[in-house]
Amino acid sequence: MHVIAYGAHASDQPLEPIRITRRAPGADDVQIAIDYCGICHSDLHQVRSEWEGTRFPCVPGHEIVGRVTAVGEHVKGFKAGDLVGVGCIVDSCKHCADCDAGLENYCNGMIGTYNFATPDEPGWTLGGYSQQIVVHARYVLRVRHPQAQLAAVAPLLCAGITTYSPLRHWGAGPGKKVGVVGIGGLGHMGIKLAHAMGAHVVAFTTSESKREAALALGADEVVVSRDANAMAAHRLSFDFILNTVAAPHELDAFLVLLKRDGTLGLVGAPATAHPSPNVFNLIMKRRAIAGSMIGGIAETQEMLDFCAEHGIVADIELIRADQINESYERMLKGDVKYRFVIDNATLA
Amino acid sequence: MHVIAYGAHASDQPLEPIRITRRAPGADDVQIAIDYCGICHSDLHQVRSEWEGTRFPCVPGHEIVGRVTAVGEHVKGFKAGDLVGVGCIVDSCKHCADCDAGLENYCNGMIGTYNFATPDEPGWTLGGYSQQIVVHARYVLRVRHPQAQLAAVAPLLCAGITTYSPLRHWGAGPGKKVGVVGIGGLGHMGIKLAHAMGAHVVAFTTSESKREAALALGADEVVVSRDANAMAAHRLSFDFILNTVAAPHELDAFLVLLKRDGTLGLVGAPATAHPSPNVFNLIMKRRAIAGSMIGGIAETQEMLDFCAEHGIVADIELIRADQINESYERMLKGDVKYRFVIDNATLA
Repeated sequence: MHVIAYGAHASDQPLEPIRITRRAPGADDVQIAIDYCGICHSDLHQVRSEWEGTRFPCVPGHEIVGRVTAVGEHVKGFKAGDLVGVGCIVDSCKHCADCDAGLENYCNGMIGTYNFATPDEPGWTLGGYSQQIVVHARYVLRVRHPQAQLAAVAPLLCAGITTYSPLRHWGAGPGKKVGVVGIGGLGHMGIKLAHAMGAHVVAFTTSESKREAALALGADEVVVSRDANAMAAHRLSFDFILNTVAAPHELDAFLVLLKRDGTLGLVGAPATAHPSPNVFNLIMKRRAIAGSMIGGIAETQEMLDFCAEHGIVADIELIRADQINESYERMLKGDVKYRFVIDNATLA
Repeated sequence: MHVIAYGAHASDQPLEPIRITRRAPGADDVQIAIDYCGICHSDLHQVRSEWEGTRFPCVPGHEIVGRVTAVGEHVKGFKAGDLVGVGCIVDSCKHCADCDAGLENYCNGMIGTYNFATPDEPGWTLGGYSQQIVVHARYVLRVRHPQAQLAAVAPLLCAGITTYSPLRHWGAGPGKKVGVVGIGGLGHMGIKLAHAMGAHVVAFTTSESKREAALALGADEVVVSRDANAMAAHRLSFDFILNTVAAPHELDAFLVLLKRDGTLGLVGAPATAHPSPNVFNLIMKRRAIAGSMIGGIAETQEMLDFCAEHGIVADIELIRADQINESYERMLKGDVKYRFVIDNATLA
């Protein structure tokens, strides 16, 4: 089946309309007409070959929502017309300890939604900047939000689960003080989710201008991280700090804000290393620096249901397909509140 | 009370006999005649002002064992003649969350056994390279080993608890694969303890020459960390790796050996930073780098009892007080198996 997509033919080329092929749905597959797809910073990194190994043509997109158009004969639980989502994962080995634990995101055989090897044409996965996608039912999520919110649900599939999973794993909830560093695509979701989980939420930003916005998102307090006195007032007080900033920066400034046994959880990977953290800051209070990557399928469904229950969606700016290249430039300048979402109807 | 000690008058001076004053035992105090005191690498760092803030004269020593000579009127549980130990902690605030949790080692008001402010003369604490010490009973440990092993018990008070605490905290035990990096004063205790806890223990060393010694200490396997193939064979297999090496080195080489949710626990603090670890190695498997510092008083007693039950002591070389300076030089060259212990009878 030929469908229209938006992708790049080389790392120095803009994205443009291209025609791609999707497989006919197999017995375990769900065929999805994509209504909206969010734009993640990873899309830009990959399509511009800023990480190694990009294959071209590259069709990014792993924040996918749409409607089921067909299901394979073995598929239970989905039928034509259902509202569904697909995130960063479209396959995994299905039999390792990670898959058995519902943590397909940590499976060594995880197949990402784009740029991962597949038997399908052209030999690697092609993502959600396209009219349709065909995905094994295990990796398809049910969307319980009202249809009117569908575009704003799309970013939950990456930005939402990437922040929800570490917040849950490190115990964000009532009685806990949680920091969120960076108020962008990931961070704005982290604030909303930590607030809905019942934690006391402190947002960290480098810019005083984001204070009101962070409070509106659900932060109980906002700290401008360049303000040494404001930072010092929070020393030794956090249970967990979710750090969404991928640009290299001093981790020690946040480590010293953690209580004994607190964790600084990183979800952004810098292109060049952060300054090396001071080991004394770890040893003195048994603190940890940890990482977290997306989340498992079951946890992604849990997150979507949690968001539906709490009325949480992303704050988005809906764009046409022919605005994708421009939106990349704006994303690089931080000029988006807080996520671009493509109206895939404009691909045609 | 005047007692003979061994200490330094300045960072560039050798240690020499000096006369110091100990307070008369208060109502909550235990007075101890010190039989043996271990030499920790921290002693050298402090006495040579390699860390900030050393006060002179400096009398190091926080691996103390001896016999009770007197107790204050409020002291229960200790009497003259009891075999006891004192580790790195001689006081703390006694009312914070850390003290309440039995983790006096993380109390902000922790008073170390030497070089910490005290009302006693000369205004800072003086350690175990001395004939006697007077310590609040809360910080005195009971030694249940046979008296003949007393000298080899001394290093348990720092090297023992510094490795026992993180091994317990991160779950070393049956069914777990645990690494120990570095086979020195700390590492040799880490191997013995992890083995006694029932873990599968892999010792990492830079030197093939330490293989037999590590196996004799209780390692199930030994890996020479310079051997890339040997390291690669252990990728993604460890639950916990205890890293005792304080010299700056690549942490990534050990991070990639951890399973999902594995922790690299650091107990050595380098004078200059380790190369900055690769955040991808944390994110990809939700791994953590954490620190741990000594252990609490209750846990130190637990460790001493565990060691008495399992017949565990340190491997030591007993020295006279007049060999302390020479032993520092040998320690710098790694020429000790595995801990120097001073026979404090030779101070007189």
